[in-house]
Parts: sequence; C-alpha cells; structure tokens
Amino acid sequence: MLELIKKKKSGDTLSREDYNYIIDGFVAGEIPDYQVAAFLMAVYFKGLNDEETAILTDVMMRSGDLINLSAIKGIKVDKHSTGGVGDKTSLVLGPLVAAAGVPVAKMSGRGLGHTGGTLDKLESIKNLSVSMTRTEFIEKIQAHNIAICGQNATLVPADKKLYALRDVTGTVDNISLIASSIMSKKLACGADAIVIDLKVGEGAYMKTVTEAEPLANMMIDIGKKMNREIIVVISAMHQPLGLTVGNALEVKEAIETLQGKGPKDLTDLCLVLGSYMLVLAKVVPTKEEGLERLKALIDSGAAFNKFKELVKAQGGEVAVVEDTNLLPLAQFQQVYKSPAEGYITHLNALEVGLASVKLGAGRATQTSKIDYGAGVVLQKKIGDYVKKNEPLATLYADNQDHFTKALEYMESAYTINKEAEPPKPLIMKIIR
Amino acid sequence: MLELIKKKKSGDTLSREDYNYIIDGFVAGEIPDYQVAAFLMAVYFKGLNDEETAILTDVMMRSGDLINLSAIKGIKVDKHSTGGVGDKTSLVLGPLVAAAGVPVAKMSGRGLGHTGGTLDKLESIKNLSVSMTRTEFIEKIQAHNIAICGQNATLVPADKKLYALRDVTGTVDNISLIASSIMSKKLACGADAIVIDLKVGEGAYMKTVTEAEPLANMMIDIGKKMNREIIVVISAMHQPLGLTVGNALEVKEAIETLQGKGPKDLTDLCLVLGSYMLVLAKVVPTKEEGLERLKALIDSGAAFNKFKELVKAQGGEVAVVEDTNLLPLAQFQQVYKSPAEGYITHLNALEVGLASVKLGAGRATQTSKIDYGAGVVLQKKIGDYVKKNEPLATLYADNQDHFTKALEYMESAYTINKEAEPPKPLIMKIIR
Repeated sequence: MLELIKKKKSGDTLSREDYNYIIDGFVAGEIPDYQVAAFLMAVYFKGLNDEETAILTDVMMRSGDLINLSAIKGIKVDKHSTGGVGDKTSLVLGPLVAAAGVPVAKMSGRGLGHTGGTLDKLESIKNLSVSMTRTEFIEKIQAHNIAICGQNATLVPADKKLYALRDVTGTVDNISLIASSIMSKKLACGADAIVIDLKVGEGAYMKTVTEAEPLANMMIDIGKKMNREIIVVISAMHQPLGLTVGNALEVKEAIETLQGKGPKDLTDLCLVLGSYMLVLAKVVPTKEEGLERLKALIDSGAAFNKFKELVKAQGGEVAVVEDTNLLPLAQFQQVYKSPAEGYITHLNALEVGLASVKLGAGRATQTSKIDYGAGVVLQKKIGDYVKKNEPLATLYADNQDHFTKALEYMESAYTINKEAEPPKPLIMKIIR
Repeated sequence: MLELIKKKKSGDTLSREDYNYIIDGFVAGEIPDYQVAAFLMAVYFKGLNDEETAILTDVMMRSGDLINLSAIKGIKVDKHSTGGVGDKTSLVLGPLVAAAGVPVAKMSGRGLGHTGGTLDKLESIKNLSVSMTRTEFIEKIQAHNIAICGQNATLVPADKKLYALRDVTGTVDNISLIASSIMSKKLACGADAIVIDLKVGEGAYMKTVTEAEPLANMMIDIGKKMNREIIVVISAMHQPLGLTVGNALEVKEAIETLQGKGPKDLTDLCLVLGSYMLVLAKVVPTKEEGLERLKALIDSGAAFNKFKELVKAQGGEVAVVEDTNLLPLAQFQQVYKSPAEGYITHLNALEVGLASVKLGAGRATQTSKIDYGAGVVLQKKIGDYVKKNEPLATLYADNQDHFTKALEYMESAYTINKEAEPPKPLIMKIIR
C-alpha cells in the first residue's frame, strides 16, 4: 500500500490490479484507514485519469452484491439525483415512468443532514414498507412495473466505507471520487441506462454549471466504458424544489404533482427527467414525444393510479394517498413573516433544509428519530414581491422549542431587495 | 480537525493554536490516525512556511519531557547526524570534545534498517549500560564531562507517533516535517547549540547538496527562532564512513580513531564536526584552532583516556577497550573477492548497510536481536585499484547461512571500472 500511495503522490497512473488491492484490502480491514486517507489526499492533489476513474468505479461496484434485473423485461432505466432540498422527484418520477411502461427498480437511501431521503418520505405513509427480499423486489416490479426499496449493506460496501473516510479527511471534493461513488452504486443496482439529475446552486455541492460539467462528462464516460447510456440533466438548486420540505409534506406535494396540480418547477423537472428516461428506455424516440406521453398520463389519472398501486403493493394505506389530510401533520405551526418589503432575490436551499432538520423532519445523526409531519411549507419563493409581515413560510413541528432555531435559519434563508433579479432557469444544461 | 485538514489542503497557514490542537489531540489519541494521515499528505503538497515549521517544532518538542541541563556548567553542544552507514562519529566525538572541556550530554537511539545506532554499538562493550535516571545522567556529566544514554519514551512522544505514521503513509519526504522531527528531538534534549551532520549521497536520504541545502537552512532558521545556534556540515555518504560496519567492529575503529590510528575519512569528519562544536561552545574562537586542539588531545592520549573514563563510568569493562581483541567477534568469516580488475568507482553505502543487517549486525524489525560481532570490514573503497579476486571486504557472521544474501548485497555495492572517477570531497558544505 505504501508503494501505491507513493505512486499516486508522484502522479503516476495505477492499474486495475492496484485498485483491486486497495479496495479489497480496505473493505476487508487489511489496509488501515490512515493509509487509505493518505492515498485519498494524494488523489485529491494528483487526480485520477478517465481510465483509472472507470476502473475504480468498476472495482467499487464489485465490492458487494450486484443486483441482477435480467428477469425483468425491457430496458431498465434508473434516475439519480445528487441531492437537494425539497427534492421529491423520485416519488413523482417512479410512478410516472412506470405508468409509461418503463420498469422502475428503485433502490433509495435515507436522509442525512439537510437533504431528505426517499425512503423516509415514503414511510410517512401509514404501514408502507420499504423492506423486501431481492426476490420480492423483482416480483413486485414484474407485477406492477415499480418497486422502491432500501439499499442494503451488501451493496457497494467499498463506497460506504470510503465515503465515511472521505467525509472526515477532507477528501470529498475530487470529481473522480465523486463520480466513482455515484456510478458504482447506480451500476450495482443493475440499471441499463441512467438519467442523472446533477444539482447546481447554493443548496448543492456544485455551485456553478462550469463546476458541474467535468463531473457530468466523467460520469458519462464511465457509463460509456461500462456500456451504460447516461444522460445528465444539470438543474438549479438555488432554492428548494417545490414548496414543501419535510417528509409527509413532500409526499402530499408529490401526489398533487402526479395529479397535475403540483408547483411548476417540480412538475417541469419531473417531466424533463421522465421524458429522458423514456428516451433511454426506447419507449419514445424523442424527448418531445416523451413530454407529451407523460403529460397525458398525468391528465388521464394513470400516473396517480400507479402511485396508489405502488403504495398498496408495499403495504401502505391507500386511503392516506386518496385523502392527504390523513398524512401525519405536526401538532404546532408557526408562520415566518417577511421582515421587509421587496422582491425575494435569494432563498437559500441549504438554510431551509437545516430549518427543516431543526423542526424534526431530518436526521442530524444516523440514529436520530424523524417527525414525519414536521417541515416547512414555502408561501413565497424567488421572484415574488412581498409586503412587510406578509407570510413567507409556515413551519411545522411537534415540539414548540424547535421553532426558535428553525426561524433563525429561515431568516438567513430569505434575501429581500428593492430590485428584482433576472429569473434563473431551472434546467441549466443537458449533457449526453 | 476536518477544518484544519481543509485549511492546509487549500494552502492556508495554520496558527500555533491549530498545531497545539493537532499535536496534543494526536498524542492523546483523540484525533484519529486517518485524519492526521490526510493532514500530512496535504502538508506534503502544500508545505509549511518557516513560521509554521518553527511552531510545529516547538509544539512537538513540548509534547513530552524537556531535559534540563542547567545544572551542568558551560555551553552544552550536541551533535546530530542524519544517519549513515558505518557512521561511528558519535563514539569518537563524544570523548574527543569532552576531553576539550565541552560537556557532552548525549541521548542516542538504536539502529533500525540499514543504519546502526550508537546505543547498540556501545552495548557491544561488555557490561556497559546506557540506562540511567535523569539525575544519574546529569551527575555523570558533572563528574566526567560526558554521558551517553538512551532516549526514553517520554521524550517528544509526538515525533515518535508522527514519524511512525509518516513512515507508512508516504509522507516522510517533506523538509518541514523532516526538520521539525530532527529539531524537536534535539531541542528537547536541552542543548544550547547543535552541530548537524547532514549526510548526502547514495546511502543517505538526501542525494545531492542542492537537495540538502533547503533542509539545512530550515533547521538553522528553526534554531534562530528558538534561540539556539546551529551549524550544518553537509558531508558525503556516497560510501560507508571508515572501513567497518557492524557494532563491535565500529567500536574498535572508533577506539583506533581516538588513538590517532583511524581511517582518514572518519578522522577528518570527526575533526571538522568536533572543531565546530568547540566553536559553538566558545572553547576556541575559530574552527582552525579547534582542529589544532582536537589533534593535540588525540596525540596526547587524552581523547582515548576520556573514552575509557566514559566506559568505566557506565559500567563497561575497560579491559575490552584497552585490548580490542576482547570485543565480540562473529564466529565465521567470508572474504568477498573482486569479480574484476579496475578502479572502484562506486561503493553503495545502502547496500553495504543491508549486507551488514543480513549478517546479523542490524535490526530488520524493532524486536530483532543483534549479533554484536557481525558486520563488514572493507578492505577497498572508492578510488582503489584492485585485481580480479583481490579481497574487497571481509564479512563476519555467527551463522553461515547469512553469507549468501549478504554477498549479493556486496556484489551490488561495488562498481569496478577501467577508468577511475575524480574523487568526491568528504565535507561538501558548511552552512551556519
């Protein structure tokens, strides 16, 4: 290992054998953390070339189980989002593209820090379970064209261990490490093609399109080398997506979106991501035809029906989905009022995400308990004109002590100015 | 700690408070190895400035006990060598400058890998002990002007832990880390001034004077910031120093040198280092006068007598020193004969050091046992003309199985060519 650290330190290229040695040894606990930490810092400074990045992805992917979806007919297309605040696209997209005939085999994660997790959101529906065996998972997809389950520990253990180490050693921000982390997990889940929603903006890891493009190209390149087609949609995370942040609140908004009554930004993003999924699945020849198909499925009620079918198949109470007033809602609420008159020019997604965590909707640590009914509903977003004391957002919590700290975050989230700023596009770039 | 890793990764300067936090936390086991490893690799790429290097040295120095030599009269001058093969200068210099009236409070280390340690060499003298309390150490110096003892674990524990980590994470080769490691240990030993013998060449860490100069300047700068005068002698380690490599063999050669019968290179280096020690101790005004003084002490027998006094004071058998035939000598010997006729143009010190380890004279690991009588005696060195089959060296071992591997190292050590190469100077540069 020392030799490999020195090689990377000098900027040399490592071989597949080298990466096998490092990853296998690290996962087996034979190579100590401190050597891997030094290696990662050398990677930060010297980088990996495209070939090495693809090799590392492949080696990480093979560090655990590989999901075999070959028993499911059709081209399996997955969607991945790099994470954002109020991002409930998976809840909308899954049923939507499943209704269009694309098999959706979705393995999701839980929330940590300021971003929520699809599994937590789904579990705010009474009795819904995301635990199932591999066989049950496949059978549900065969029967309903969709299933959503948790990633278990046997999936890419190398990434779990490596990410935990990167997180505490200042080696998160290298695009080869980011790309191999994302791609190894997605590829291990067995999809034939993937649409990646790469978030850019204040609430995301990447701040600009310029920063995001090399990562997008690298993921597409990894896909090419591993024979998987990838489309990257670079979308804005300058402010939260939609109007809700918090588990049950987001489920409600996702249902409304599937019914054609959702907020414009969330609806638009789901339609764009979904239509590219249809293109990759070869269900439609062009993105435009995909958009038409998806809109029709929303209008006909087929998309919402697919969501109900999913909930039922996973044991959830369908009544809750039919009447969203039955979803959990926190006991207390507090309105956050505008401190000034003017145009909202910034609405920092990260701050809103942190407010939501403080309200009980998220996890500060991996073992924190979630209040499903807690969170934030935004009344006003960027571009809106507001008067002083006009409600900007409503906060929900099961404990009134949570409001003080959450309100502080909300205060730093909103910026109100005399002059409006030119609107920023939601979809910033498509790379394929 | 994560913030400090990120700061150094971005090339920022860290404060004294930061280094206190890192070193104290690391020594206490509160900051994990993997974070320190990542930090060290960031230091490798971004460096420390002079101020940071001096702070790190000071903080490391204070991580354990500080030796207080104030009870000893006079200016205490220490010597440090960066390590070489056949380097027995400490054995010669200690008694030599002590005889000149400079108090010598020498704390030495044991050998590891291809370089030997002063303590191991001394212990080849029957009954000699290098273990003593601090009080005994001071009392011996007050009585005899010299004592040589081991560094115990309470001396700069930060360096011990940090060096062990650097060694396995590819972060040894940063001059700030090297300088702070050397200087923290020397300064903790309480000397007022230090002569540093910085080795350069095939058998040393630094290969050229150009490489060595920045390290020399950095150590002088650290000394200046901590109010200690430093002189750096850059000397050649292209080939072993003197003719012997191995513990008792080196003691014998050191005694001969103290008697004025030692090899020229070893004698010359000891005289140069020693005369600068006399200058720093303000015993003589110039190096030239120092040289005269030391030569006189050798000629009069005072230097050798001081060595006997040291041996006696530390419990060793003086008879062994008076008749070096009583020193341990390995049971078996084997002559390494020249494979060709010509001039010896290279005699790789590292290879000879490794041969000596294989013969039983060194430690492959920290717990290896040493054969005091094993080692190598060189009959021929660089510049000598040899005939085919003429003896180049004699190898000594207590186990005949050791010769095969040792002979392989000896074969790679010697290079014999038709043409001689111009001789290289032993003393390459003095920096103060």
